[in-house]
Amino acid sequence: QAKRDPEVSRYWQVAGSLLRRFRRLLFIFLSLNFTKMTFLFDNVSEMNGAGNLMDFLDEPFPDVSTYEDFHTIDWLREKSRDTDRHRKITSKSKESLWELIKSLLDAWSGWVVMLLIGLLSGTLAGVIDLAVDWMTDLKEGVCLSAFWYSHEQCCWTSNETTFDDRDKCPQWQKWAELMTGHAEGAGAYVLNYFLYILWALLFSFLAVSLVRVFAPYACGSGIPEIKTILSGFIIRGYLGKWTLLIKTVTLVLAVSSGLSLGKEGPLVHVACCCGNLFCSLFSKYSKNEGKRREVLSAAAAAGVSVAFGAPIGGVLFSLEEVSYYFPLKTLWRSFFAALVAAFTLRSINPFGNSRLVLFYVEYHTPWYMAELVPFILLGVFGGLWGTLFIRANIAWCRRRKTTQLGKYPVLEVIAVTGITALLAYPNPYTRRSTSELISELFNDCGALESSQLCDYVNNPNMSRPVDDIPDRPAGPGVYNALWQLTLALIFKIVITIFTFGMKIPSGLFIPSMAVGAIAGRIVGIAVEQMAYHHHDWIIFKNWCRPGADCVTPGLYAMVGAAACLGGVTRMTVSLVVIMFELTGGLEYIVPLMAAAVTSKWVADAFGKEGIYESHILLNGYPYLDVRDEFTHRTLATDVMRPRRNDPPLAVLTQDSTTVEDVETLIKDTDYNGFPVVVSRESERLIGFVQRRDLTLAIKNARQKQDGVVSSSVVYFTEDAPQLPASNPQPLKLRRILNLSPFTVTDHTPMETVVDIFRKLGLRQCLVTRSGRLLGIITKKDVLRHMAQMMNQDPESIMFN
Amino acid sequence: QAKRDPEVSRYWQVAGSLLRRFRRLLFIFLSLNFTKMTFLFDNVSEMNGAGNLMDFLDEPFPDVSTYEDFHTIDWLREKSRDTDRHRKITSKSKESLWELIKSLLDAWSGWVVMLLIGLLSGTLAGVIDLAVDWMTDLKEGVCLSAFWYSHEQCCWTSNETTFDDRDKCPQWQKWAELMTGHAEGAGAYVLNYFLYILWALLFSFLAVSLVRVFAPYACGSGIPEIKTILSGFIIRGYLGKWTLLIKTVTLVLAVSSGLSLGKEGPLVHVACCCGNLFCSLFSKYSKNEGKRREVLSAAAAAGVSVAFGAPIGGVLFSLEEVSYYFPLKTLWRSFFAALVAAFTLRSINPFGNSRLVLFYVEYHTPWYMAELVPFILLGVFGGLWGTLFIRANIAWCRRRKTTQLGKYPVLEVIAVTGITALLAYPNPYTRRSTSELISELFNDCGALESSQLCDYVNNPNMSRPVDDIPDRPAGPGVYNALWQLTLALIFKIVITIFTFGMKIPSGLFIPSMAVGAIAGRIVGIAVEQMAYHHHDWIIFKNWCRPGADCVTPGLYAMVGAAACLGGVTRMTVSLVVIMFELTGGLEYIVPLMAAAVTSKWVADAFGKEGIYESHILLNGYPYLDVRDEFTHRTLATDVMRPRRNDPPLAVLTQDSTTVEDVETLIKDTDYNGFPVVVSRESERLIGFVQRRDLTLAIKNARQKQDGVVSSSVVYFTEDAPQLPASNPQPLKLRRILNLSPFTVTDHTPMETVVDIFRKLGLRQCLVTRSGRLLGIITKKDVLRHMAQMMNQDPESIMFN
Repeated sequence: QAKRDPEVSRYWQVAGSLLRRFRRLLFIFLSLNFTKMTFLFDNVSEMNGAGNLMDFLDEPFPDVSTYEDFHTIDWLREKSRDTDRHRKITSKSKESLWELIKSLLDAWSGWVVMLLIGLLSGTLAGVIDLAVDWMTDLKEGVCLSAFWYSHEQCCWTSNETTFDDRDKCPQWQKWAELMTGHAEGAGAYVLNYFLYILWALLFSFLAVSLVRVFAPYACGSGIPEIKTILSGFIIRGYLGKWTLLIKTVTLVLAVSSGLSLGKEGPLVHVACCCGNLFCSLFSKYSKNEGKRREVLSAAAAAGVSVAFGAPIGGVLFSLEEVSYYFPLKTLWRSFFAALVAAFTLRSINPFGNSRLVLFYVEYHTPWYMAELVPFILLGVFGGLWGTLFIRANIAWCRRRKTTQLGKYPVLEVIAVTGITALLAYPNPYTRRSTSELISELFNDCGALESSQLCDYVNNPNMSRPVDDIPDRPAGPGVYNALWQLTLALIFKIVITIFTFGMKIPSGLFIPSMAVGAIAGRIVGIAVEQMAYHHHDWIIFKNWCRPGADCVTPGLYAMVGAAACLGGVTRMTVSLVVIMFELTGGLEYIVPLMAAAVTSKWVADAFGKEGIYESHILLNGYPYLDVRDEFTHRTLATDVMRPRRNDPPLAVLTQDSTTVEDVETLIKDTDYNGFPVVVSRESERLIGFVQRRDLTLAIKNARQKQDGVVSSSVVYFTEDAPQLPASNPQPLKLRRILNLSPFTVTDHTPMETVVDIFRKLGLRQCLVTRSGRLLGIITKKDVLRHMAQMMNQDPESIMFN
Repeated sequence: QAKRDPEVSRYWQVAGSLLRRFRRLLFIFLSLNFTKMTFLFDNVSEMNGAGNLMDFLDEPFPDVSTYEDFHTIDWLREKSRDTDRHRKITSKSKESLWELIKSLLDAWSGWVVMLLIGLLSGTLAGVIDLAVDWMTDLKEGVCLSAFWYSHEQCCWTSNETTFDDRDKCPQWQKWAELMTGHAEGAGAYVLNYFLYILWALLFSFLAVSLVRVFAPYACGSGIPEIKTILSGFIIRGYLGKWTLLIKTVTLVLAVSSGLSLGKEGPLVHVACCCGNLFCSLFSKYSKNEGKRREVLSAAAAAGVSVAFGAPIGGVLFSLEEVSYYFPLKTLWRSFFAALVAAFTLRSINPFGNSRLVLFYVEYHTPWYMAELVPFILLGVFGGLWGTLFIRANIAWCRRRKTTQLGKYPVLEVIAVTGITALLAYPNPYTRRSTSELISELFNDCGALESSQLCDYVNNPNMSRPVDDIPDRPAGPGVYNALWQLTLALIFKIVITIFTFGMKIPSGLFIPSMAVGAIAGRIVGIAVEQMAYHHHDWIIFKNWCRPGADCVTPGLYAMVGAAACLGGVTRMTVSLVVIMFELTGGLEYIVPLMAAAVTSKWVADAFGKEGIYESHILLNGYPYLDVRDEFTHRTLATDVMRPRRNDPPLAVLTQDSTTVEDVETLIKDTDYNGFPVVVSRESERLIGFVQRRDLTLAIKNARQKQDGVVSSSVVYFTEDAPQLPASNPQPLKLRRILNLSPFTVTDHTPMETVVDIFRKLGLRQCLVTRSGRLLGIITKKDVLRHMAQMMNQDPESIMFN
């Protein structure tokens, strides 16, 4: 990887050998460890395939697995393999008590994996939160009493009463103060500014270098790839140990560098890596790609659960957005994993407030029907932002893929970080971390709040209890904040488009929410001031009692955040549930729902795909979306291969092909398998044989079975064919023949075929007419056809 | 219905003619109304089937629909019919603006239906709550200021401070007080007792009579039947207008009569009836059984949403427990319907506290790790109760079906009501309504609480703020309450077994929760007193500060309720979410989850089926459970018909069967359809033809097409067969031939076949070997085979 890249090579030469040595050591350690643990847990490994005719196919060589990289799995096959395994264990369990215990352990292994995933992903999330906190503050200053304290932890013991004063506690020193002794003045400002940029550049350079050198798969949000993997695609190493390690480290660096990105998407990737790691402890999961995907679905739920502190929302996110095959059993297990993860995170308590959620808010006033109008407008804004972002980001990513730009990923990251830091520092709303910004925007103005946003003019004539906030005109601080927020909004909108998709871990949830929260807060303050200055307007008359606060600008920020996130990702239910778990009250579900649904409708009107689907399309992954409905009139015969004028389909006959013919066929074609017919004349289908099984069986027979030569006849029938005595010994291959291949007739509508592929997770399907084999349809043929049809008739997608 | 029943006949003669007249009038009114509304909403009815070759098959006669009663639908067929419809509308929408508007209206009709369902089911739930409240209190007394006030409403304006005193306000008079003037004394007690029983008998007699005379389908909880209907079965009238009306009325009567039953299950049925009602407004849903089921799934969510005030829990209940086919689109719509329903209910505000939820609780103390032990014990209790209840109830229901008992449903209801009222009145915990009991058991003892359960010994030396409850020894009231609760527990356990399944609307949620809540509260008080009296024990030392309250008995009641409900229904995630929505805090998810999962595991160890599945099995509905995994080694060839020694399969040939042969075949067999083969010799399959289509096509041809006589040849090929000139005109039937029947080979493992039936919702599947037709497998064959296998090897279910 690194060799091909000119700019990293110098850096590489310096650090290379050291790192390589470290990597090897770590690798040895990890594998040793896991081999040991496998022995501990893996109670069923020995019985796997015992007495099985297809032994040599299951584990032919230690490093050859069932599917090749970048291939699609066959769900039906995986399922029936699991049932076989299960049947074997059940029948063995009656033999002795020990076998019974082993079978019970096997039945419980699913829950054990979930527990481990929950514990590890919760711990990692906690560590990431703590590290990000510390490193984000490191850009501005350092804690003198203990350098590993973040700003908040440093000033925790301070005795000041207001939040503002407490922030300025003496233990915490800005860099300029520490170096020059002057905390104020232009010089100090410039020095702080300079060091802020320097730290940001350092962090992002480290992040991109680590990604490039160690784990190229650690970049991006990971959700598009995980969706593809869950739908049954193999990307080897994408969920490996290296990716886990590097993604965790670089995620901290990338977030701390102040780039416009979040940690939520990458946390899902990290959780899935944990899931994959623990799968390798149990042969039940490690040897079955279908079962492995059940675990990964649950791991995705645990990822969102720790990202937001929303376990139910995490499960629904996995169900709505990520997963492909989600049986009820997975639902229960996902919920368990999500809960364990959330509680592990809570016991680490990284936010120091013993709250589970990322943005905890409590509002005091209810909302009114008339407010639905601004909420729906925010929904429209969210939909438009989603459309704009997806189009612009995809265009930019395409440019990156096709032009010179893509060759300098490190330079790109450095440049974007530099620009971000340069523009972000002067504006207090962009200087701090995005999560803090969102948190402040969501907050209701309490009596003790000292933020600019709560700088309302106090009327000394009014005496009220501390907690009751009367409605008040905005003070100069609020107007100042409005300007800064507007600039921050424009900045965030532009910079996020260029940030998402760079070669560092980057999530999209937080920047999207920030855009929405800023817009929402601006709208909220506008409505609030309108209500104050125009009490007599008919809409405000019924709604606001004079003198009482009736608009909560924080709620508008939350609604805006939901709308923008919905516009980009097209989530609805899981989004609302996540937001509901943040506020903990059913009261605000209707505003959130109205905004989320509006934004989805608006965004859908401009294009059906969310950001993840768009990236899947951009990268050309074979992903068959559950949501796309195929409504065209084509038939299986229009899609199957061979097309008219193509050479005929490559088939084997049941008893007249020679070993040499088979070997030639394997060499000349790259199909995954071949149909077997009675004879070339009748073309009546009897089964399907996998390319891989065929290769291995012939290799095996040539080595071990006497008399098998190139001219030997291969037969798939029960009995050997009648051959002249002079012929060499024939080779029986019935045991590798799949006698129940999936078939449809040539008149089957493609919508049914698409449905079958989607629901049964097929890899290929044979096409027949009155029992004669006509052709074959693979998953890729289906996807290609769907894309073709979609392009022909782009309008039709509007009406789905 | 009534004629067959001897005991109702006298009553019937008196009220019969009047009721019949009323029924006819109401029916005319309803149909008039809906015909009108259909014209208003149904914008696409005119274009349906225009220019369609299969016109006469779609609507042959106004009262003949696609599927017969008690038959299974074909999901694939319904889906492709909907796609056809959709394609037609999309292509038409380009013709004119009006068509475009119509197509947009069609696209929105799904959301309109959801809105209507939400509004109506929310309203009905509110009305039911109010009516139940009033009628339950009517058993004890009456409000003098306004007889339509319930006890609580009557005393609302009273000035007493404690709840206890307020309950005795002068406007509210017990029957004895009103009649004799004496409120106290043995005479008054006996009179009140007598009138309590009398009212209960009256209510239950009315309920059972209404069910028997007007809508026999209105009995029971309805959830087993709805599960079956959603899986693709047709039960005509089960969700009809009559059922809706009668179930709503009788539900009020049944709950008010004080029987041990709840309104939650029936509310799901009522909501589904609403869904079905509104489906008839839109041809998109009324003419497509598949689309109709999507609406019904959402309606079930709305039903649970109003039953508990838990919209998210409702959606998950529909997903986990009820629905069969639940695409993402349905998820969004269900959520919308559930929200609308919940907010409609809240605006009616039947509980008078502007809370959405049925049992609102707030706890003040956290829980401790050590408490997980009693929580898990409660889970075990819940699992055992679930097993006991299911076995006993099923045994009793089977006895009812097979013996004389089933012939006297009215008498049975009267007897059970009499016993219930007789035993319930003396015990204050069973006298009141079950929801009130649960509410009290869930509640934490506040300072103002005057209930017996909160009768702790006050230590006058301790001065504390009002809200802080110190730990205290139990007073005599608590010990008294414990005895009464134990008796109530035994009573509830026994009587619920006999109540569920009678011919009145009866839900199971509330009685199950009551059993669990009583057991939980008893355990909670025991733990609390143990902690008080043994502060020095090692487990309590770390956990309870001396003098502070550290055990919340109300939480134990809630955990117990969740465990018992889980044991009976086997819900997990939706159950926890419903409970989470009741308390509104993530804090208590772990105890609830621990109890729910334990109870599911314990109950599953004794038998896989929950109460709903057991009732489905008992009634023999063709329900293919998504959760049952089929793990046997059988092949399609073992299940298909014809079996060995059976007569050969009834098939048609493509061009050599005569009209008379077809008619004989239809008369002699009762199959749903017939495979069409090339010829009887080659047996190569070319398609499948539905019995109904065949009957209609021949009937139609005989009436309208000249020259078609009994000896005419029927052909399914493109071109007419070569026939001697003397033969009568042949009849072409290719357009009714399904050219893409679903086939599997005879070697296909049954687990794959089960999977295909389940995921694709097939009705039948043809079995072939190398293109030759061998047999047929229908959904009922699959179910029969699964039941057979299950009985052969009952142990295997433990390991799923």
